[in-house]
Amino acid sequence: MAILVVGSVAFDSIETPHGKVDHCLGGAATHFALAASYFTPVRVIAVVGKDFTAEHEAVFTKRGIDTRGLERADGLSFHWKGSYAGSMDSAKTLGTDLNVFEKFEPKIPNEYKDSEYLFLANIDPVLQARVRSEMPNVRRVCGDTMNYWISDHAENLAKVLRELDVLLINDGEARMLTGEHNLVLAAKKVQAMGPKTLVIKHGEYGATAFFGGGSFDNGVKALHPFRAPALPLAEVVDPTGAGDSFAGGFYGYLASQPKLTPEVFRRAMFYGGVMGSFTVERFGTERLQSVTREEIEERFKLFMEISHLDYAGA
Amino acid sequence: MAILVVGSVAFDSIETPHGKVDHCLGGAATHFALAASYFTPVRVIAVVGKDFTAEHEAVFTKRGIDTRGLERADGLSFHWKGSYAGSMDSAKTLGTDLNVFEKFEPKIPNEYKDSEYLFLANIDPVLQARVRSEMPNVRRVCGDTMNYWISDHAENLAKVLRELDVLLINDGEARMLTGEHNLVLAAKKVQAMGPKTLVIKHGEYGATAFFGGGSFDNGVKALHPFRAPALPLAEVVDPTGAGDSFAGGFYGYLASQPKLTPEVFRRAMFYGGVMGSFTVERFGTERLQSVTREEIEERFKLFMEISHLDYAGA
Repeated sequence: MAILVVGSVAFDSIETPHGKVDHCLGGAATHFALAASYFTPVRVIAVVGKDFTAEHEAVFTKRGIDTRGLERADGLSFHWKGSYAGSMDSAKTLGTDLNVFEKFEPKIPNEYKDSEYLFLANIDPVLQARVRSEMPNVRRVCGDTMNYWISDHAENLAKVLRELDVLLINDGEARMLTGEHNLVLAAKKVQAMGPKTLVIKHGEYGATAFFGGGSFDNGVKALHPFRAPALPLAEVVDPTGAGDSFAGGFYGYLASQPKLTPEVFRRAMFYGGVMGSFTVERFGTERLQSVTREEIEERFKLFMEISHLDYAGA
Repeated sequence: MAILVVGSVAFDSIETPHGKVDHCLGGAATHFALAASYFTPVRVIAVVGKDFTAEHEAVFTKRGIDTRGLERADGLSFHWKGSYAGSMDSAKTLGTDLNVFEKFEPKIPNEYKDSEYLFLANIDPVLQARVRSEMPNVRRVCGDTMNYWISDHAENLAKVLRELDVLLINDGEARMLTGEHNLVLAAKKVQAMGPKTLVIKHGEYGATAFFGGGSFDNGVKALHPFRAPALPLAEVVDPTGAGDSFAGGFYGYLASQPKLTPEVFRRAMFYGGVMGSFTVERFGTERLQSVTREEIEERFKLFMEISHLDYAGA
């Protein structure tokens, strides 16, 4: 089933202990779409500027991603500048030039209207809500957000949360959103806000899914939480986009499956980790552009091997 | 096979958001011994004071733990006073009265000499090394340490590390010991210091085992790392002793098995998490005293359920 993703397509200038890149293709929707494209058809809605060339667009189309929703506006594309030091746990933002993104008004091409899965990447919750309302027939809605919207746009965000089947955020965002440090209690509070299923990403420690009821799908009821590992990596070249790649692998795999069962959901968590582990191996989207489905399956097996008691390869 | 553990048997006065206790039985060797006692015979070497009563000793003997190595000295037992607030990630030490522990000279009873497994809990590395040298015929040696010994007694600690098959420490200790933030690189450095197998505990995120070669046992060679989950808990009453309980479950299970295979090692990591998850449910050793083997097996299954893709209960 096709996923429609709305979010940012941007350029990133990044410095990490392993080097620096200037204006490489980035943005949440980009990482998400590339990661998801290995599993299911993806359609993207975003706005870019004149600096977004045919070569940049080819990064999407080579992966079969539908770019008819990629709007060209006068001006420059969204540009984020950041650096990672030491632990590389979190980015230090050195600059955010919204440029054409500042007046982004998502327009949904007619050809996208039959999308069954919707992913609301991290953008203004007002826009997330609008896109959601214009896609009344989607089967499932998954979304992301960040500290800025949680702290300064809580009311708008609350409206989006009520519409979500799955919310995908990290530890810090879950704690900020709920005022609760304990993640189990935080999950309960999030579930009361709307999304019955919450996936909390723990960075290098993996991710946990909390299930709150039957609303996501009859196949995934109030189970125990599920923990997926992350791959211990000797070298993280650039963590930018790891979370969006997790979301792409997770949601892409879900959308690719005819039926949502607990086992499918669990596998989706693993594919999320797999795609995140590729992204951080290189700067920007380099690795996501070149990875093969065979490498993905091989790494999936590696995730099994590092987490399963009785994995045959052990 | 029997485990000999040397370490602290102490009294803890603890305050957490869930209440406070005064002078409850604690200490690394206590938590370790109780957790391990559900799997294998355990013998303890420690020093206690006059405040350690027959009732306290019965906590050990009720669990079949051999206390002939429990030395009574004049004075009071080691007393630790600490509190946890907010995230409860780390304790704030409010006071440490070493008391009789200050002049602790471990003496190994003859009846303990045939122990096949040795656990060197977190004490002065000089004492760890001495006990190790007096037990030349043990089959396996596992040890713990803490920031104080890492920073101020590095040379003595280095001698102990060379004698260890497995080192069990947490994220912060691994980073401090190696000066390396990345845990994969930190593991490689630790392995060059002696222990070919390193288990790093990540608190609420579980634990990772790194295997560096064949020295631990021919059955566990240079495998990929293995990640064991921790149980997401809505309520952590008192985290004190969780790490020592992990060590007890881990090492106790290993010692109980006739042959060390990769699968046995993996299961040991799960049992470590299981025992840690019980400990934090109540203050001090309360839960470790009352848990049953049936509850342990039930929770082991729960650990499978929250981490395995194809667990039958899913």
